[in-house]
Amino acid sequence: MTIRQDTQLADGRDLFYYDSQPGQDRSAPDLRLDLPAVSTSSEVRWNPLFRDYSVIAGHRQSRTYKPPADLCPLCPSRDGKLTEIPSSDYEVAVFENRFPSLSLKAAATVPLVDAPPFQSGPGDGRCEVVCFSSKHDDSFAQLSPTRVRTVIDAWADRTEALSSVDSIDYVFCFENRGEEIGVTLSHPHGQIYGYPFVPPRFYRAAEAARRFRERTGDCLQCRLLTAELDAGVRIVTESDGWVAYVPFAARWPYEVRVVPREHVPDLPALSDELRQDLATVYRDALRRFDLLFGAPVPYIADWQQAPVRQDRDVWHLAAEIFTIRRAPGKLKYLAGSESAAGIWINDVTPEAAAARLRGDEPSA
Amino acid sequence: MTIRQDTQLADGRDLFYYDSQPGQDRSAPDLRLDLPAVSTSSEVRWNPLFRDYSVIAGHRQSRTYKPPADLCPLCPSRDGKLTEIPSSDYEVAVFENRFPSLSLKAAATVPLVDAPPFQSGPGDGRCEVVCFSSKHDDSFAQLSPTRVRTVIDAWADRTEALSSVDSIDYVFCFENRGEEIGVTLSHPHGQIYGYPFVPPRFYRAAEAARRFRERTGDCLQCRLLTAELDAGVRIVTESDGWVAYVPFAARWPYEVRVVPREHVPDLPALSDELRQDLATVYRDALRRFDLLFGAPVPYIADWQQAPVRQDRDVWHLAAEIFTIRRAPGKLKYLAGSESAAGIWINDVTPEAAAARLRGDEPSA
Repeated sequence: MTIRQDTQLADGRDLFYYDSQPGQDRSAPDLRLDLPAVSTSSEVRWNPLFRDYSVIAGHRQSRTYKPPADLCPLCPSRDGKLTEIPSSDYEVAVFENRFPSLSLKAAATVPLVDAPPFQSGPGDGRCEVVCFSSKHDDSFAQLSPTRVRTVIDAWADRTEALSSVDSIDYVFCFENRGEEIGVTLSHPHGQIYGYPFVPPRFYRAAEAARRFRERTGDCLQCRLLTAELDAGVRIVTESDGWVAYVPFAARWPYEVRVVPREHVPDLPALSDELRQDLATVYRDALRRFDLLFGAPVPYIADWQQAPVRQDRDVWHLAAEIFTIRRAPGKLKYLAGSESAAGIWINDVTPEAAAARLRGDEPSA
Repeated sequence: MTIRQDTQLADGRDLFYYDSQPGQDRSAPDLRLDLPAVSTSSEVRWNPLFRDYSVIAGHRQSRTYKPPADLCPLCPSRDGKLTEIPSSDYEVAVFENRFPSLSLKAAATVPLVDAPPFQSGPGDGRCEVVCFSSKHDDSFAQLSPTRVRTVIDAWADRTEALSSVDSIDYVFCFENRGEEIGVTLSHPHGQIYGYPFVPPRFYRAAEAARRFRERTGDCLQCRLLTAELDAGVRIVTESDGWVAYVPFAARWPYEVRVVPREHVPDLPALSDELRQDLATVYRDALRRFDLLFGAPVPYIADWQQAPVRQDRDVWHLAAEIFTIRRAPGKLKYLAGSESAAGIWINDVTPEAAAARLRGDEPSA
């Protein structure tokens, strides 16, 4: 059972504590009385050439950049050091980002522009930080299954809450890990973005799923899962409820999809059993990444949930985990083909990647 | 007048020398008689979930990785050191990549798979390297206008040649510059990819252009260019034939589109005047990037040409130049929002970026 306690930081931002058992005192107030109000000029601009959105967040250039460990803003507030989390301990804590790319407050300052070809509007969404552990040197793969379950419940709870906000069309839970992908705070944490649109990559996925359903009556992701299980060579690990596999057309050197066998649209729709099972499978998948090269790898892990208001019936939940490390000491960079043409060149075959993630073959 | 001389390397790969005047002796043979034949297992795989291609190139993991300067394979062959370029000097040289992501030879070894949801085929394209200068420490922005003109002619000539190959549907000329984006050879060079499909980003752009034409009778890029010229604030530099501007919905901290005023589909279609003019404008645009922070920036520069066999009438040529440097000592990383959701967060407003590229405002 996950218990939530709600509070606010000194500047009015929301903070939610999630605990695995009742009776935790999370009432400590935020004592940073001089905390300046969050400012935002987040703007969403439409690019008609590529039918794409960009988020312009000019106010973020001055955000916290690799603070020393003893000034980590995600550690609990202890020994007179005041952080983003007033409590002296916590299990999982979620709060509004102090330097948000998207903010529900943007509507007050950013105008709507509808003068084609120029179209833009406020970045009327939400950016939240999810702290997975109060221990600064912890990592997701090292969390206990109980803690992973609490994180899953927090993701699901925040997805439900953000889905009820009028301007938010997509809730995106993700974790960036590692300096190599630009993570400026090493404390184990993820993020939740509530986008005021369906991101194009997921919009196209919804479109593909809907067309497949119309043509065949089936779910595309269910069909793919069955095909992957039949093929076998790209399966990494599986359980009663979940399968982790390297996709046939993987973009990244090591990339895994974690998919429920059941056709479920999003995290809030997961049953108690599926959440419990996921806690084990997801942690297992992350651990396999860190075993690849004998050292923690930089990775991105993200949840592909159904859009809030469209195509929910055809959408099948999945997590995607990938690393940009392609070999010891070597990273996969996004250069011309990837960044400009949108075509990933992958130097590791998905079958070899799966064998290495299973532990059947050495990778280094 | 640009003169081409064709030859082959010891392993049978094509090499083309481009010179600005006749009478250059480029007949030196490749003396590396022990050069192993190029092997390739390039495969294109289709991802039905995202309607996207990946190129799987497992044979590339062992490619040359940051050789010392005195072993640079792009320097001319001199003093007994044998490189990819047999001549002891050159102006511009184009040759087939020794570690190609795509190769017309792939068809011989890679089967076609048509067993939905799994669909794949040989990476039946071409990867070429374009050397801009024989001087190892040169850079594109430092080339003479005459040399830039020769490069433009080489791009156009190779675009024509690759467009006539049956399996190639898109010719992509680009330059990756800087270790920060993974460039392993510092010698000034770019690349040309002949893709056996239209890359999704350009496929969607062609679709958007076609729809706009059907709806309004106009070219979307002409319309945007007019609107940008009217607005003025995002213009960086312009000439009789070309305009360089920061797009309204720029994805990158500093991003410039270089667009001909005339509606031209690709580089081969450029008149002599437009090429001559471009040599100045393009070099000027690149120089402005290196002036931003008082030191060379890592950048990607790419040409968005019309697809070879579709939508040529609605396509309007453009170059795109962008850097991943967002501030001195700080890079823009592609993390969860960009790499997984496809939504770029840009911390520099396009208007500020244009002012800094114009030199109106300091950037550092």
